[in-house]
Amino acid sequence: MTSFSTSTEPSPNGLRVGSRPVAPANARIHGVDVSSYALDGAGFWGSRQRVNGTATIAHCLEWMERLGWIENFDRIARGDVTRERAGWQFSDSEVYKLLEAMAWELSRRADDELAGAYARLVARVAAAQDDDGYLSTAFGHPGLPPRYSDLAMGHELYNIGHLLQAAVARVRTYGTDDLVAVARRAADHVCTRFWDDEDGLCGHPEIEVALAEFGRALGEPRYVEQARRFLERRGRGRLPVRPLLSADYFQDDAPIREADVLRGHAVRALYLSAGAVDVAVETHDGDLLAALERQWSRTVERRTYLTGGMGSRHQDEGFGDDWELPADRAYCETCAGVASVMFAWRLLLATGDVKYADLIERTLFNVVATSPSADGRAFFYANPLHQREEAGEAADGVNHRAEGGVRAPWFDVSCCPTNVARTLASLPAYLAAEEGDALILLQYAAGELTGRGLVLRIETDYPFDGRVRVHVVEAPDEERTLRLRVPSWAEHATLAAPDAAPTFVEAGWAQVRRVFSPGDVVELVLPVGPRFTWPDARIDAVRGTVAVERGPLVLCVESLDLPPQTRIDGVRVDTRFEPRPDADGAVVSVAMAPERDPRGWAYGPVPAESPQERRSEVRLIPYHRWAERGPSTMRVFLPALTARS
Amino acid sequence: MTSFSTSTEPSPNGLRVGSRPVAPANARIHGVDVSSYALDGAGFWGSRQRVNGTATIAHCLEWMERLGWIENFDRIARGDVTRERAGWQFSDSEVYKLLEAMAWELSRRADDELAGAYARLVARVAAAQDDDGYLSTAFGHPGLPPRYSDLAMGHELYNIGHLLQAAVARVRTYGTDDLVAVARRAADHVCTRFWDDEDGLCGHPEIEVALAEFGRALGEPRYVEQARRFLERRGRGRLPVRPLLSADYFQDDAPIREADVLRGHAVRALYLSAGAVDVAVETHDGDLLAALERQWSRTVERRTYLTGGMGSRHQDEGFGDDWELPADRAYCETCAGVASVMFAWRLLLATGDVKYADLIERTLFNVVATSPSADGRAFFYANPLHQREEAGEAADGVNHRAEGGVRAPWFDVSCCPTNVARTLASLPAYLAAEEGDALILLQYAAGELTGRGLVLRIETDYPFDGRVRVHVVEAPDEERTLRLRVPSWAEHATLAAPDAAPTFVEAGWAQVRRVFSPGDVVELVLPVGPRFTWPDARIDAVRGTVAVERGPLVLCVESLDLPPQTRIDGVRVDTRFEPRPDADGAVVSVAMAPERDPRGWAYGPVPAESPQERRSEVRLIPYHRWAERGPSTMRVFLPALTARS
Repeated sequence: MTSFSTSTEPSPNGLRVGSRPVAPANARIHGVDVSSYALDGAGFWGSRQRVNGTATIAHCLEWMERLGWIENFDRIARGDVTRERAGWQFSDSEVYKLLEAMAWELSRRADDELAGAYARLVARVAAAQDDDGYLSTAFGHPGLPPRYSDLAMGHELYNIGHLLQAAVARVRTYGTDDLVAVARRAADHVCTRFWDDEDGLCGHPEIEVALAEFGRALGEPRYVEQARRFLERRGRGRLPVRPLLSADYFQDDAPIREADVLRGHAVRALYLSAGAVDVAVETHDGDLLAALERQWSRTVERRTYLTGGMGSRHQDEGFGDDWELPADRAYCETCAGVASVMFAWRLLLATGDVKYADLIERTLFNVVATSPSADGRAFFYANPLHQREEAGEAADGVNHRAEGGVRAPWFDVSCCPTNVARTLASLPAYLAAEEGDALILLQYAAGELTGRGLVLRIETDYPFDGRVRVHVVEAPDEERTLRLRVPSWAEHATLAAPDAAPTFVEAGWAQVRRVFSPGDVVELVLPVGPRFTWPDARIDAVRGTVAVERGPLVLCVESLDLPPQTRIDGVRVDTRFEPRPDADGAVVSVAMAPERDPRGWAYGPVPAESPQERRSEVRLIPYHRWAERGPSTMRVFLPALTARS
Repeated sequence: MTSFSTSTEPSPNGLRVGSRPVAPANARIHGVDVSSYALDGAGFWGSRQRVNGTATIAHCLEWMERLGWIENFDRIARGDVTRERAGWQFSDSEVYKLLEAMAWELSRRADDELAGAYARLVARVAAAQDDDGYLSTAFGHPGLPPRYSDLAMGHELYNIGHLLQAAVARVRTYGTDDLVAVARRAADHVCTRFWDDEDGLCGHPEIEVALAEFGRALGEPRYVEQARRFLERRGRGRLPVRPLLSADYFQDDAPIREADVLRGHAVRALYLSAGAVDVAVETHDGDLLAALERQWSRTVERRTYLTGGMGSRHQDEGFGDDWELPADRAYCETCAGVASVMFAWRLLLATGDVKYADLIERTLFNVVATSPSADGRAFFYANPLHQREEAGEAADGVNHRAEGGVRAPWFDVSCCPTNVARTLASLPAYLAAEEGDALILLQYAAGELTGRGLVLRIETDYPFDGRVRVHVVEAPDEERTLRLRVPSWAEHATLAAPDAAPTFVEAGWAQVRRVFSPGDVVELVLPVGPRFTWPDARIDAVRGTVAVERGPLVLCVESLDLPPQTRIDGVRVDTRFEPRPDADGAVVSVAMAPERDPRGWAYGPVPAESPQERRSEVRLIPYHRWAERGPSTMRVFLPALTARS
């Protein structure tokens, strides 16, 4: 178990409201503090959080120094910036996301070196701020375009939004510091500048979710109101549309309360939706909340991959039409996974509906966990479900964002590494929650959880093993409810209360309510054996195929696990035989389609025949681990021997 | 039958080498002159050529006047151009493609109004040319970026290429005129500027194919050599790659003789390949020709749609990986169809291999003919094989190029209308050829064809009827071969020589050799009844589906033809019953899958079941006619009731 601090000394300035990323006052349920759930360093999530803290954060810092993205702030302070500044117009946001990750990480463990790096970075950012609070390294200074001269694509407010989110992390885990002061001045500037500007909105949403949370964190309703104003202005075609784009790219095609599904650029749509839930909850706007729930439902039903990935189009990095879910060209940007967790988390807090926690689990295990390499120094940007051709090795330098098949140390557009970093650093806050006298286990991760007077030690090898043992370490002398999520895929799960026999529990919430005593054990057993999963017939791209899941994990076949001289696209699964568990994956029975001679033309008068010969077995591995052993081809959905349409 | 001129008076300057777009000296077979094949105005192609000449050409001229793309030339002449000029940096090319269309059209029929419009347009272009031959409205003048300051994306040489192609049309149908003189000065300028510049190549190929042909037309080997130099320079990573692009976008990733398949931007790859065939033929470079044949074969086998459409990615308008052929996101740009015909035509002339003529037929009927509306004033830019959602009506103004489902009068990038115009205006040249004593019918279109001393009257309702009657109107007193293409899909085709019984002929070439007499009739009967066509099992996107073809036509189901309350995605074809002919389409037996209640999640433990109830019949129409009756959804590949994988 990693050392960590659960410091409970009072905040330096009393602003601390709990060290959690999202803290609505009037939600249905409440997340726990980041510091309330100490993850075991050897567990699935604890090990990733450890690598994130010790490797990924330093990796991101090194890259942004090397590329000059941090020096951009120094150049503003020195006054020698030019249009040839380093990086895209949104590079500031990467620095802020890294600061957010650092702030969360510093709340988890004392690290003087990290604290020093944080302080130095804050100082460099602070030095670039204008007297009136404006802060940008790409606009608004001599040699650069004027302030807010390209609201549609300039990302100025988007950048400031990430600054505010970093400040939220800091003020809630530490209290006011220079970063928080910088963020407050920036937020005040934004309100002054945009309060009454009916055309003022940013092409990339983010400022909305950030202002809402920063307003909560500082008890400043003006910030929430500014977020509301940004939201309501959107969807009226006010952003100038560039050639080859359309207004739905940045969700300016329809007011958010009138839309019926997410569309356009996936990360934009999801950040916007997350901010809209915050505004709906803060302003008691039930209609808006209901609209967002409807949009989430249709999006998840018809525009979401088995992995939880969202965004099926490389073009515009956007959502496709309903049921347009190609496996090979699945974009499934890592950042869209992060943003989907943000959106679903806020809906979960607002409604308490277990379905949101189900999607969060799926997305965490199959998108967020897929992106970083085991050493935390390389990342997937896009997360396709089918890799047709072996990728080359990643470039040592900056990589194209959408290259599939290989994790890369850095990208031209490098939003994903820092987004993974801030998510893993704050992850414990998303794993448990409280409601009334109930402590709720939303996700299962080995570690120690404190809440509602209970101290629980959670032992599990989930997701590879389905047994979750909850040991009561401390308990108050009054009744408490221990509520556990039973995932929607879990048939015949069992729950055993202390000293009682296991009983079957349905998918949804299961719970034990009693006066707990130290030494009590509650045991949940989830059936994580491998199972076939079939796609809806309306998803044309995967007709006639089947996937294999194991607990919350989506599995895949990687070419490295095939018999010699076997093409991955020739594998046909015989679904008469159930998949068998194998290490952390599964084994399925297959027939191998022979390689056919090229016919010159891919369309002919005879249907393709199912191969009946060359029967074999093939091993599947967790999707999040693919491409770890070098270049390969890969499939999640495998053609079934006997397909139906 | 439309009036037309088959003027045989000598060219004003003797340069005329036959009014054909492509005239290699040492090809295996030779195309006929545009003026040698007069199409019936009521036939499939003749009616399209008539509408093109009377409506489309004027439509394009009106739009380019309205948008200021022509005035750009006046502004250069007046010296008052600015960076805020109208249109993209390649708008000049649209003016040149229109001039090419006008030149071909003027060779077909006398039209004083059109001749006047042509002359006025040439004068405006000529006035913008610099003294040294340079010609551009987007670069190289005060207020604009310097000449050749953005070779990768600036399109200066691309534009000049289309100027030369227009001049080829003019010099071969009329002789030297002001346009030809302008083009000659421009070509000389290009050779002077780029002869020894090893880094000098254009991001968008076109100058290569244009220089090669202009060199042939003027007997100027220097132009062909410049084309060869451009070709050989390419593929060595010399073009600067923009962020988010890669070198294969403009085929600068590998030398053309080393590549094994077309990749990157489809139109660029195909124009480049067409020019490379020209250079290979002119320089007797058998290795290069062989490389291009291999690339064509793999591209057609693995990266081409049933329609002949190429380019499966909206992103970069490019080729995807082998077998990456989604029906819904098929880009299949109309211009890529035109460019594919250009490439295949040159390979056909070089080799005489019938497979190239087969692909040309498929592409003409299912891509080129699909783009324009019946009135010739609206166009498809992209040609997907599956429309999931009904499109809105096209905007009256400029439309997004890639909006599916509706033909639009004009686009932000409007390359397709003028490309259709120049192709239809010169179409007869692609329908027949000559080799030795043989006159070859490559495609079947009603009209009158002259060649090898024969005058033939071709009567047919092809492709709706498979009977092609070739009447000999005039014939020389010596043996001639009449060779006819039997398409690869044609099983049990028959050919009847004059006064002989029909005999079965295999796919490929069939022929009659004899001393023909006026009054002789040769009759070819092609089986154009509807048939099922199955995709290769490696095309994941259409697994478990079947298409219906009828002769050379790909058919489709349009939602307007379904029973009420039927979703197009619920149609399942029962392939136990052969499709029946119906009007110009077909009827298939189907079962209708019931609309299911949303399940909230599209992936589950039970395979989709085949519907066995609600049996019905559904009408299919030719794909090229879809979306003519208002917004609809559409599919080419339909799920089969009993699928195989």
